[in-house]
Amino acid sequence: MELEKLERVSREHVYKGAIIDLYKDTIKNPDGTIEYYDFIKHKGASAVIPVMDDGRIIMVKQYRNALDRFTVEIPAGGRNTENEDFKECAARELEEETGYKSDDLELLITVRTTIAFCNEAIDIYVARNLVPSKQNLDPGEYINVEIYTIEELVNLVFEGKIQDAKTVAAIMAYNHKFGNK
Amino acid sequence: MELEKLERVSREHVYKGAIIDLYKDTIKNPDGTIEYYDFIKHKGASAVIPVMDDGRIIMVKQYRNALDRFTVEIPAGGRNTENEDFKECAARELEEETGYKSDDLELLITVRTTIAFCNEAIDIYVARNLVPSKQNLDPGEYINVEIYTIEELVNLVFEGKIQDAKTVAAIMAYNHKFGNK
Repeated sequence: MELEKLERVSREHVYKGAIIDLYKDTIKNPDGTIEYYDFIKHKGASAVIPVMDDGRIIMVKQYRNALDRFTVEIPAGGRNTENEDFKECAARELEEETGYKSDDLELLITVRTTIAFCNEAIDIYVARNLVPSKQNLDPGEYINVEIYTIEELVNLVFEGKIQDAKTVAAIMAYNHKFGNK
Repeated sequence: MELEKLERVSREHVYKGAIIDLYKDTIKNPDGTIEYYDFIKHKGASAVIPVMDDGRIIMVKQYRNALDRFTVEIPAGGRNTENEDFKECAARELEEETGYKSDDLELLITVRTTIAFCNEAIDIYVARNLVPSKQNLDPGEYINVEIYTIEELVNLVFEGKIQDAKTVAAIMAYNHKFGNK
């Protein structure tokens, strides 16, 4: 069977949140039936795997309200605007969250976090040649820095102690491409 | 610095969507300032890497409204209720979307798709010993089945042709644990 694109009849803005905009989409299926889809518009984000000269990786620990627990993640943050360059956003978030900066950022992969209802894209970079700078957290941002080897991070994924999807994807893709090298 | 848990002062339901519930959380920071957080309550989902006897993997292709394009993903779907067993959900979605069933499901990893504002968890299983059954799509679900080797899937991730975070995490974790075996 040839797959058909679903037809979006309309998109209605229903709620403006702190960081998201929620829409109600009216979708017409190929058989003519009508369905409603949730759609969350997100301005996109960047994330960074900061690799120290000895190969260890800088992670950030923070409290996540949506999960009601602390998480260990790669540094990341939303773009300031829909037009901000993803790489500039990555460099900024790296410096703000970890206190290291880098001019050596290489795109590893792009992930889409929640394709059932959200257009968020996260470009994930590998940052090397880190230079000490100054952590500069946003108001309301409380982060500790922790340092791990890639082997430790892979183990934390399979032990279920790191579950954040961007971080899991980043660790496993980095390990495949650069691990033990 | 010792990290503190942020205090949630209140959670207000602000919108009921087709598959999500949106809340406005009032959060008190350690310094006493107040912020508002978006929170999306999601009932959780399961996903499956269906491995054929020859080692190839069954993927599903579908149109995704949130991205306005076709995607290639591992089979997945939401739990029917907040109490549905994740493994039963995985077995059901496998059969419905691919037309194969399996009694041999092994948990690979759990991912959290969007921890900045959503509690969605996806348990990702590896399914083996597949038995032909019958595809049984939900109304409004239009899916084609495609078959790939794990090497092809890894390449599609690094080429940016597979970006869905659960699928990227699943492919890379599966390849690390079982690839070339």
